[in-house]
Amino acid sequence: MILLDGKKTAADIKEEIALEVANLKNQSKKTPHLAAIIVGDNGASITYVNAKVKACERVGFESTLIRLAEDISEKELLNEIERLNVDRNIDGFIVQLPLPKHIDEQKVLMAVDPEKDVDGFHPTNVGKMALNLPTFISATPFGILELLERYNVRTSGKHVVVLGRSHIVGSPMSILLSQKRTVGNATVTMCHSRTKNLKEITLQADIIIAAIGIPEFLKADMVKDGVTVIDVGITRLKDASKKNGFKLVGDVAFDEVSKKSEFITPVPGGVGPMTIAMLLKNTLLACERVNY
Amino acid sequence: MILLDGKKTAADIKEEIALEVANLKNQSKKTPHLAAIIVGDNGASITYVNAKVKACERVGFESTLIRLAEDISEKELLNEIERLNVDRNIDGFIVQLPLPKHIDEQKVLMAVDPEKDVDGFHPTNVGKMALNLPTFISATPFGILELLERYNVRTSGKHVVVLGRSHIVGSPMSILLSQKRTVGNATVTMCHSRTKNLKEITLQADIIIAAIGIPEFLKADMVKDGVTVIDVGITRLKDASKKNGFKLVGDVAFDEVSKKSEFITPVPGGVGPMTIAMLLKNTLLACERVNY
Repeated sequence: MILLDGKKTAADIKEEIALEVANLKNQSKKTPHLAAIIVGDNGASITYVNAKVKACERVGFESTLIRLAEDISEKELLNEIERLNVDRNIDGFIVQLPLPKHIDEQKVLMAVDPEKDVDGFHPTNVGKMALNLPTFISATPFGILELLERYNVRTSGKHVVVLGRSHIVGSPMSILLSQKRTVGNATVTMCHSRTKNLKEITLQADIIIAAIGIPEFLKADMVKDGVTVIDVGITRLKDASKKNGFKLVGDVAFDEVSKKSEFITPVPGGVGPMTIAMLLKNTLLACERVNY
Repeated sequence: MILLDGKKTAADIKEEIALEVANLKNQSKKTPHLAAIIVGDNGASITYVNAKVKACERVGFESTLIRLAEDISEKELLNEIERLNVDRNIDGFIVQLPLPKHIDEQKVLMAVDPEKDVDGFHPTNVGKMALNLPTFISATPFGILELLERYNVRTSGKHVVVLGRSHIVGSPMSILLSQKRTVGNATVTMCHSRTKNLKEITLQADIIIAAIGIPEFLKADMVKDGVTVIDVGITRLKDASKKNGFKLVGDVAFDEVSKKSEFITPVPGGVGPMTIAMLLKNTLLACERVNY
């Protein structure tokens, strides 16, 4: 069993990006600048967006954090987005989700200039992804592709089973892995809540992408020997034995499934750490378009 | 065995559209206007685009056919597209493919205003489709959904196997059928040239969408009893016994597979006739946005 170490891989990627930034500086070129908009005081969102800003600083990016009040109007938020769209100093920006209920999330995502949409959530970028055209692939799917590539996990001709059809993970993974690309060319089965005889299907899988948000859903009796497992789930469960009172659990019963696995991601330390690294990579790409 | 009669269904849809147009006229509202651009003298393309224009006339749409010379520059073609983008009298328009080699097809498709892109080929519309947002679904996938719906073919919880990952048929079908929608909620396996043990997979399918362009590829020993088969393929084969010297053959060995099928589309007369009907439906939708 080989652990797909997202923490280490993400650190490698950040180091590569830091080198690139140093190069840009040496050549007196523009360095990447990421802006992040956060609306309201949701604790988890603030923690997450702060981690993104800190990661920017560590690799030498410029960063701007824009905190807006919970009761900001949709119109004002759209104005703020337009300001970032036209600001030539900003290469890419993100709007931290979720947004307060009085704001139409889809409308906001649509307002971001696709050229600066480093989250890859704008329909134009989702469409380019589906058409296998160059674009910003959103962080979690991009991170999974990168992890598979760096560990030389072969996907061509393999049977991939994706569990969960979310727009953020499951659906794009199913699209990407079936395309003609280095990490791709797989036969992909997309499963979800309406799937019948799920176990029959997972037992056929060479690679399983679990992204359903049900802790320890995938058990050892549902996988064949030599399977590769990517666990995207992350749920906090109470655990009195832990200092902070909880443990993080994925969608996979790691202890038992890992025994049958060729490759497997741990939780935490698997897919999670890759997402910020890939956001940085997208921002670097956005800046390179300006530089060349 | 029940034949999924695309010819009859398409005729029904056109009749419904004609009634809608009559209603619009009675209310003195704008009637749909479709424009089609064709570049060069490709015989098949001209036949096809003429059929579209004629179909417009029959349901009461206005139509404009714009024929451009084979040697038109990309710039001139893009200017023509921009002219249609801003022409308020045109609700939707299409650029007949393929284009001459000196023109970048992707650039041209990207130039069409997504609001008028009734072919549904613009990345923004492909992205909206992938995100299950209201959009123009391109004609062939839209036609297949409509055919399944009108014949009450249940897809929820069924195992659909899609053969062929083209951007025009296979890939969008795999996305659409796995989504939460009336005709959807299926477990979908996307197969293609790199798929191994294909027969093992097709034998598990409740529904097969064959879109690979290999005549009579799907044989009876590859499907289970009670399968539903949608045949998107259409190839001309020489046939001396026919008046015109050829016959049209699908991707499915119809005679043998139909004996095991619950529902099956014939070729010709299955998916083919549906595409023009759905193009008209998209144009009607585009016009309704103007009217309301």
